[in-house]
Amino acid sequence: MSKLYIGNKNYSSWSMRPWVLMTQAGIPFEEVMVRFDSFDATSQFKHVIGAINPVAKVPVLVDGDLAVWDTLAIAEYLAERFPEKQLWPQGVAERARARSICAEMHSGFTNLRGNCPMNIEASLPEVGARLLAEQPGVQEDLDRIVQMWTELLDRHGGPMLFGAFTIADAFFAPVGMRIRGYGLPVPPAIDAYIARVAALPGVAAWIDGALAEKTFVAFDEPYRTSRD
Amino acid sequence: MSKLYIGNKNYSSWSMRPWVLMTQAGIPFEEVMVRFDSFDATSQFKHVIGAINPVAKVPVLVDGDLAVWDTLAIAEYLAERFPEKQLWPQGVAERARARSICAEMHSGFTNLRGNCPMNIEASLPEVGARLLAEQPGVQEDLDRIVQMWTELLDRHGGPMLFGAFTIADAFFAPVGMRIRGYGLPVPPAIDAYIARVAALPGVAAWIDGALAEKTFVAFDEPYRTSRD
Ligand SMILES: N[C@@H](CCC(=O)N[C@@H](CS)C(=O)NCC(=O)O)C(=O)O
Ligand SMILES: N[C@@H](CCC(=O)N[C@@H](CS)C(=O)NCC(=O)O)C(=O)O
Repeated sequence: MSKLYIGNKNYSSWSMRPWVLMTQAGIPFEEVMVRFDSFDATSQFKHVIGAINPVAKVPVLVDGDLAVWDTLAIAEYLAERFPEKQLWPQGVAERARARSICAEMHSGFTNLRGNCPMNIEASLPEVGARLLAEQPGVQEDLDRIVQMWTELLDRHGGPMLFGAFTIADAFFAPVGMRIRGYGLPVPPAIDAYIARVAALPGVAAWIDGALAEKTFVAFDEPYRTSRD
Repeated sequence: MSKLYIGNKNYSSWSMRPWVLMTQAGIPFEEVMVRFDSFDATSQFKHVIGAINPVAKVPVLVDGDLAVWDTLAIAEYLAERFPEKQLWPQGVAERARARSICAEMHSGFTNLRGNCPMNIEASLPEVGARLLAEQPGVQEDLDRIVQMWTELLDRHGGPMLFGAFTIADAFFAPVGMRIRGYGLPVPPAIDAYIARVAALPGVAAWIDGALAEKTFVAFDEPYRTSRD
């Protein structure tokens, strides 16, 4: 059975993606959590992850001798290994579109990612309102998300972005967590999609794990000084 | 025949990747160059690219009704459509490794990318030396590149990262251009790999195109005021 190395569930948006994907698709794996202490070269985190992955970041999927790092490479590896799980949409064109938006997520949305770090347990609507007022880039990223999801939900009729659950929903699940946690205003249809994603057993299980964590990681908390 | 929308060959590192991939692999396409005027919402560039791609960035591959954007999605689309071209390594483990380093490139190396924008025609060794002295992140990115390439060239015995030419070489070709243009010091085996990549017909054709361009794009030129 493969091992998935992840960071704290409350904070690690990149770890969330393959964990949700595998859990929701019913692909068995052993979870190895490496808690964030710091990202300094001397940290325990870097020490443990650096031993299995030259980039020293989570997530990493270890399958026998093979370490696959980076969410996109992990997703493609799983899609190849478990074709019966239909992790990508089945049509050529829809699969290309799903890959386009996942790659867009992977390298983009830097304003939203930088200003609104994932923090599942926190409720920060005042921070969200302030950021939207002060940082035009956050609103631009949010607008693009709303446009993208609206178009895909219209095209496929839901419930997920490409009809059934795919890698694309796993890739955008942490964005839904941010929209909720920072109270960013979105149209009702987008709100409903986020609620459907949050209710998927694979996503709900991750959220439960995040809420059960008691660790407060200061460098991932620009807006709070404690967990309550 | 599909159309590949690209930016200026001298500057557009992301455009270079799929162009080199298709040219080197012998996949026919029609090139559509959209020159950079500016990236403002009102620019000609944004106007043309925004009409075919919601993200309004190059590259975009247009195949009939389908627009595929983002280099990684384009690469996966081509690998699926032209399996006989063996664009990814053939072994499962090597393919996963190639995807890991391409995804690492796609979302990482921000110090090298930000400080040393691709500029094929320019020779800027003094700038490179200064950046290495002043920006520790540039040296860190370079160290990781050297480590990655050394390990892969040792493992497969060259000439390319995974033996024969694959998507991975196309993805790192612009990095080779930067190492050369900024005169960043690398071991002889790495230098030799960069020279082999630059001599591939698909890469040489791109370089020729870049050198033939006469446009000076000021916002892509932090270190010069003219082209000579
Ligand atoms: N592009 C990577 C990003 C992974 C990433 O940045 N992970 C964070 C945690 S969410 C990390 O490990 N950071 C450690 C560091 O930046 O040193 C992916 O898609 O997997
Ligand atoms: N993640 C994208 C990046 C594409 C990208 O940033 N392209 C640049 C030109 S090299 C661009 O079109 N920039 C326009 C802008 O930033 O507005 C990819 O891999 O294709």
